[in-house]
Amino acid sequence: MTVQTVSLNKSHGGMQGVYRHASRETRTDMTFSVFVPPHGENARLPVVFYLSGLTCTHANVTEKGEFRSACSELGLIFVAPDTSPRGADVPGDPNNSYDFGLGAGFYVDATQAPFAKTYRMWSYVTDELPKLVAENFPADPARQSVLGHSMGGHGALTVALRNPARYRAASAFAPIVAPSQVPWGIKALGGYLGDDKQAWRKHDTVALIEDGARFSEFLVDYGDADQFLGEQLRPELLKAACENAKIALTLRRQAGYDHSYYFISTFMSDHLRWHAARLKA
Amino acid sequence: MTVQTVSLNKSHGGMQGVYRHASRETRTDMTFSVFVPPHGENARLPVVFYLSGLTCTHANVTEKGEFRSACSELGLIFVAPDTSPRGADVPGDPNNSYDFGLGAGFYVDATQAPFAKTYRMWSYVTDELPKLVAENFPADPARQSVLGHSMGGHGALTVALRNPARYRAASAFAPIVAPSQVPWGIKALGGYLGDDKQAWRKHDTVALIEDGARFSEFLVDYGDADQFLGEQLRPELLKAACENAKIALTLRRQAGYDHSYYFISTFMSDHLRWHAARLKA
Repeated sequence: MTVQTVSLNKSHGGMQGVYRHASRETRTDMTFSVFVPPHGENARLPVVFYLSGLTCTHANVTEKGEFRSACSELGLIFVAPDTSPRGADVPGDPNNSYDFGLGAGFYVDATQAPFAKTYRMWSYVTDELPKLVAENFPADPARQSVLGHSMGGHGALTVALRNPARYRAASAFAPIVAPSQVPWGIKALGGYLGDDKQAWRKHDTVALIEDGARFSEFLVDYGDADQFLGEQLRPELLKAACENAKIALTLRRQAGYDHSYYFISTFMSDHLRWHAARLKA
Repeated sequence: MTVQTVSLNKSHGGMQGVYRHASRETRTDMTFSVFVPPHGENARLPVVFYLSGLTCTHANVTEKGEFRSACSELGLIFVAPDTSPRGADVPGDPNNSYDFGLGAGFYVDATQAPFAKTYRMWSYVTDELPKLVAENFPADPARQSVLGHSMGGHGALTVALRNPARYRAASAFAPIVAPSQVPWGIKALGGYLGDDKQAWRKHDTVALIEDGARFSEFLVDYGDADQFLGEQLRPELLKAACENAKIALTLRRQAGYDHSYYFISTFMSDHLRWHAARLKA
């Protein structure tokens, strides 16, 4: 598998790269970023996958996420994929809809035409990308974790719940926790997976937990000034599901914070310390 | 003077704002950002002015600068102005030239038509903006400092040298130190100030020092992988001038770093600690 280097910049003692490759899953070129902290010659380092929210590419967190200082201190590789396939031939014009199509893959493998051919972000982030990272970077595949923001928080929690042996930690900033019950999720899951709501349950954190999926523990932060809190995020549904299932949930309401990277960057190092403690345990 | 709030986001415990006002100096609307760290009700806080480089607005450092964590810890207000007047009527199309005109004001008061009317960035950053900040934010005008990057490093060093009593600290990332001797500076100073090279010397760090200007001490970082190092930045000229004038210069060559915000963000907290130590002395 050939990976092309788009850019490479030294930062915080490590190297921040942006890469492009022809994806088997999406049948498009995919761009992703990888930060590799300073490390010994033969080191294999734990890897944190960061899944971004609606409208984002790899670039948003790479530029605004403020993760490099902590990753260098803690010895973590940080990987940030795109949020959908991209290209002139890919359906889903974001000018028509910011919350469906390009920039809004929702971390599912679409089953509905015309999306099924290219919108395979579930397989991309759980299978193709981790293998690519393991082959091309000093990564230890036995030590992976996942975090994300908003739609990417949904991605991180569902990825962890369906692969509990693979990920040693999972956390989220302002995640969508019950897409089957909120407008963003109903639109996306309906559009990509069709009308059969049973199929949606495998991509719904609350439903997965209700159906028996388990993960050791979650860390979730949200801002109480988040403009999407009440309608789209609904953290109380995650709290109830985790309580019923006896999943340890550290759910933190952060006073005055909104949905932006000004919020994410504030708590990024907290999350990375949480991940590092579990990746190195 | 009326200041309009463009955006306000909580971050790292403080408030990151973006503001707009009708500038007396530039006769245009000017946008700038201010981060105010958490503080007591009647506190007056030291203020760091950050001057940006070619092509930048306030947004580059505001999004990528990674200054908020340190500013909150140290109790510093951080102000980032634009790099030129802006607007449809302002001459200097950046599509024709990234290093002259819009986004490239070079922190001078232009004397040449058609720039003299609006390109008054020297007076803007040394007079109008500090007063605006003192009137509208919990700032202590007796404790100001200045730093900058590239063209903004040139701005910071010249501003400090010509106002040594006003600024308690000055530092720079990859500054232009001798604009009269390098292509960027020759183009800009010639275009804004005309052919009289005596007029250029008041906007040239090395020439100012040769002509007797003094400042207590400077901190300057540059990357040895900076693509502009040999032709445009020439830190060795600053080193020689400071040695001759017995100005304390901490000049650090950072191995492997380039000219980007990946470099700046790495050393931002170092610079802010340097400023805080002098602002609070």
